[in-house]
Amino acid sequence: MKPRLLEIRKAVLKKNDEIAAKLRERFLKHGILALNIVSSPGAGKTLLLKKTMEILIQEGFKVGALVGDLQTDNDAKFLAKSGAPVRQIETDGNCHLEANIVSDYLADWDLTDFDFFFIENVGNLVCPANYDLGESLRVVLLSTPEGEDKPLKYPPMFNSADIAVISKIDLADFVEFDRKAVYKNLQAVHPMLAICELSAKTGLGMTNWLDFLKSKLRVLRSEMSIKV
Amino acid sequence: MKPRLLEIRKAVLKKNDEIAAKLRERFLKHGILALNIVSSPGAGKTLLLKKTMEILIQEGFKVGALVGDLQTDNDAKFLAKSGAPVRQIETDGNCHLEANIVSDYLADWDLTDFDFFFIENVGNLVCPANYDLGESLRVVLLSTPEGEDKPLKYPPMFNSADIAVISKIDLADFVEFDRKAVYKNLQAVHPMLAICELSAKTGLGMTNWLDFLKSKLRVLRSEMSIKV
Repeated sequence: MKPRLLEIRKAVLKKNDEIAAKLRERFLKHGILALNIVSSPGAGKTLLLKKTMEILIQEGFKVGALVGDLQTDNDAKFLAKSGAPVRQIETDGNCHLEANIVSDYLADWDLTDFDFFFIENVGNLVCPANYDLGESLRVVLLSTPEGEDKPLKYPPMFNSADIAVISKIDLADFVEFDRKAVYKNLQAVHPMLAICELSAKTGLGMTNWLDFLKSKLRVLRSEMSIKV
Repeated sequence: MKPRLLEIRKAVLKKNDEIAAKLRERFLKHGILALNIVSSPGAGKTLLLKKTMEILIQEGFKVGALVGDLQTDNDAKFLAKSGAPVRQIETDGNCHLEANIVSDYLADWDLTDFDFFFIENVGNLVCPANYDLGESLRVVLLSTPEGEDKPLKYPPMFNSADIAVISKIDLADFVEFDRKAVYKNLQAVHPMLAICELSAKTGLGMTNWLDFLKSKLRVLRSEMSIKV
């Protein structure tokens, strides 16, 4: 990369981190578990989010979401059916979300009482890796039809995530998905990565996923109470 | 985007276009049909390429390939099994190929006698759209598990392509793929886009795809002979 371009990119990332730190502070002040959901296009982020939000709402949690796409507000409309407040960010061609746009969209949003806040990133397994959005938890989806080799080919994303969700597990046999290989590849790029297999379509594995989210919320709030 | 950053990006794109124009000239001078293959991660670019090259080689064509990934040379090793010369470009984190890196990797490569030259881009449905690699044909893959809505959500890529390959068509029923919807969505973003459905795994649709490639090569060479 050209030195001048590299220098500007570094400045952009530094500015992003500063805004993300303020966002994180805001989420934590309200005891909110904020999640940044990343994956390839079509890995099933939106369906997982809708099912997750529906169940959490039924269980009495308060949830909200921001969803990023190059164009269309289809995902926000679909997610709003869960009953949760959802806003669409159209990035107008930008390949990832940045902290400043998340901050803008959250500026007039009253976050009091929220338990979980989901940020669905643009479908892209490369560029979103570099941009902190102030989340407490970064979730990367890897759908079984994509293949077991993706962690090795896209290491920054899998390395920066806190949990890998192996999605569309109902298709595993049909696409001859090699579970052993994917665990090995995930551990090669991120030895401590949490892994969760599920199908948002059939419901398989959803309980484990929701238990994981709720345990993370409990940990976040107990840490808060220690700090207070 | 910041004005300064935008200005530099424009300069990068302009420089890229200049190098791509030289690459295109070089491919055309040798009567080579150069293809830039783009898609989301895991849409099946590499398997399609391997099967395509194997059949073309059997039929007496001379083919070669460059393959881009953030990391690993797994794809080049896999593709080389076809018997074709293949080189791997590791982008070291960069989210797309650019003309200068393609040019560097081709610098010492004797292109005389090649018929088809395939450039497999980094798996990314956003960023590669902006970078001309000197190809005569841009091929975008959309695999059935990704869903019918992708053309609407990633319009620059589908708009800049010459043909959309709907891959993994053997999974269509299993993932409840809506063919009518995908044709409608593809035509909405690119009314004249050629469309080809196939499964590299089962072989379904491969003949159509290969006929398409060979007809494009014939057109390219007859245009050349007119110019001479």
